[in-house]
Amino acid sequence: MNIYRYEQNPLVTPADVKPHRPDFEVIGAFNAGIAEYNGEVIMLLRVAERPISPDPDVVLAPVYNVERGELDLFPVRLDDEDYDFSDPRVIVRKEHAPSFEYLTSLSYLRIARSKDGRHFTIDDKPFVYPSQSLETFGIEDPRITQIGDTYYIYFSAVSPVGIGESLVSTKDFESVTHHGMIFGPDNKDVLIFPERVNGKYYALHRPTTKSCGRPEMWIAESDNLLYWGNHRHLIGLRDGMWDSGRLGGGAVPIKTDRGWLELYHGATKDNRYCMGAVLLDLNDPSKVIARSGSPIMEPEADYEQNGFFGGVVFSCGALVDGDRIRMYYGAADTSMACAELSLSEILNSLEAV
Amino acid sequence: MNIYRYEQNPLVTPADVKPHRPDFEVIGAFNAGIAEYNGEVIMLLRVAERPISPDPDVVLAPVYNVERGELDLFPVRLDDEDYDFSDPRVIVRKEHAPSFEYLTSLSYLRIARSKDGRHFTIDDKPFVYPSQSLETFGIEDPRITQIGDTYYIYFSAVSPVGIGESLVSTKDFESVTHHGMIFGPDNKDVLIFPERVNGKYYALHRPTTKSCGRPEMWIAESDNLLYWGNHRHLIGLRDGMWDSGRLGGGAVPIKTDRGWLELYHGATKDNRYCMGAVLLDLNDPSKVIARSGSPIMEPEADYEQNGFFGGVVFSCGALVDGDRIRMYYGAADTSMACAELSLSEILNSLEAV
Repeated sequence: MNIYRYEQNPLVTPADVKPHRPDFEVIGAFNAGIAEYNGEVIMLLRVAERPISPDPDVVLAPVYNVERGELDLFPVRLDDEDYDFSDPRVIVRKEHAPSFEYLTSLSYLRIARSKDGRHFTIDDKPFVYPSQSLETFGIEDPRITQIGDTYYIYFSAVSPVGIGESLVSTKDFESVTHHGMIFGPDNKDVLIFPERVNGKYYALHRPTTKSCGRPEMWIAESDNLLYWGNHRHLIGLRDGMWDSGRLGGGAVPIKTDRGWLELYHGATKDNRYCMGAVLLDLNDPSKVIARSGSPIMEPEADYEQNGFFGGVVFSCGALVDGDRIRMYYGAADTSMACAELSLSEILNSLEAV
Repeated sequence: MNIYRYEQNPLVTPADVKPHRPDFEVIGAFNAGIAEYNGEVIMLLRVAERPISPDPDVVLAPVYNVERGELDLFPVRLDDEDYDFSDPRVIVRKEHAPSFEYLTSLSYLRIARSKDGRHFTIDDKPFVYPSQSLETFGIEDPRITQIGDTYYIYFSAVSPVGIGESLVSTKDFESVTHHGMIFGPDNKDVLIFPERVNGKYYALHRPTTKSCGRPEMWIAESDNLLYWGNHRHLIGLRDGMWDSGRLGGGAVPIKTDRGWLELYHGATKDNRYCMGAVLLDLNDPSKVIARSGSPIMEPEADYEQNGFFGGVVFSCGALVDGDRIRMYYGAADTSMACAELSLSEILNSLEAV
């Protein structure tokens, strides 16, 4: 696969983002939803910030307090034997493992804008910040589907009752309308198709199950984007392959003459995240036509291999212009980067299912 | 609480049900959905059957094969150290614990009919049997909501990709229309309200989450019963109380002049299942008004304390006639029983939230 990584990569790093309050530090600006608006490329960053702890033996866990409209910071001592700090993203109370008790950072959405798709200017303030009871641990990994002049923005809403997927919409990237949680917990990696197919809206989604089953891709349908049903299992993990540990949708499905092309992420059990693709029937996206035998992109550059959580390329949005795909992606749960790939080369690389 | 358990209890036991094939045995006839149709009480039993193993050292795990339209029986040796058989309901592959690999029985739905609500005649054949790829491990714990002349029947659909809630409908308890999975995995204990409230249908549901959160009750809304959204968390577990371990909806919500009364099950961490109640606002069921401080019913009778999984009363349906509630319930994951309670006594017992 021919991959052209931009010379400017990483395009946005945490150092480029001013924290939203002085006692916080930005540790990630990554996994951005992508849209084109008003002649510019919009990168809707997931910004992750953590409180700067005055005591090196204490972690401060940020939690949004809906009643007070501001963050609470819960101190947890690093030498407290009731807790496990081995995953830098979460604080696990050992008796409740593998569930987490707190996140170590708060994520929210912030806009970066660019005329050329390579040089971005970052807004001074958050665009979508936790405000609901289902968002008190933060909002993560946005995707953007444009339908007409409306941009539907949906993201993982994280709170002590689980992780679900919530929806907001905007027409101007200034004001936002909230539409509530569209996929109940546990769910992530929702991708809404950009047009109706045979009269129905479709969305990919990724339940995380506990009873049985694995983190795999499902598809659902809707007639209004708010209410979803007819949930069906779409593609599963493949033992011994690049998507053997977990997988989930990445970019908004791309309409091609051969079918709907979904660029998705897959990870091995040791959390090496690559990007691959799956092709779905143009008239019935619940039918899988072909799929990547090997990744279309692997974490190889330094900024992909090293970071807050290294060995990760994770796209939440791409722009298509003829045969050229500009795939924006989060690198190492830290920064944003972009790579260009050929649409026809990806399609030709897929193996019939 | 005054509880009148029928003298005929248990009303249906596994011994009353003929297995659907000669090489199987019925181990449960329980957790029935309840409806009134054609002057009769319909008990839509969850029947659990297991293959009789010719080898006492081998368990046969039943799995529906959609292509062949019949069951596969997978042998697992009881001395295979890769597996854990300590929970009689499931076979756990230790490396995947706590997820299960197989169920030990196959559940499906079968009709029992009664003129007096106490003496039931059981149909010879299954009414709803696994037929879809999301049902290959069986279908469990049906509930029935009557809207007009249509009976909406929904149940846990269990398969290797998780447990979700699927919907069928009937007008005559003979033919059935399938409507697909309405709540994706992991989800159980869905209860659809019997009428629109302020123009929307509502349903209670019970996600099982893995990331964080506990098995608690949520509410969602719909405009067509098929597609659901605006998921909100409704009530949570209460440490040290009868519903400290898990909870979920039980009977279809009952409309009273004080609000929607939901009879729900709660269990302690050591799996003692009781029934209690929660009262929801008549015009906005996402608002909780009052709730049981102590259970309205606990497992006390011998047939409730002893069985396949003892210490369980678990209602999936009740009939209301003035102040009298006939609460049908599964006892010890084995049999069906019924108890009469006073609606006003339950309402008066609730504690304001």
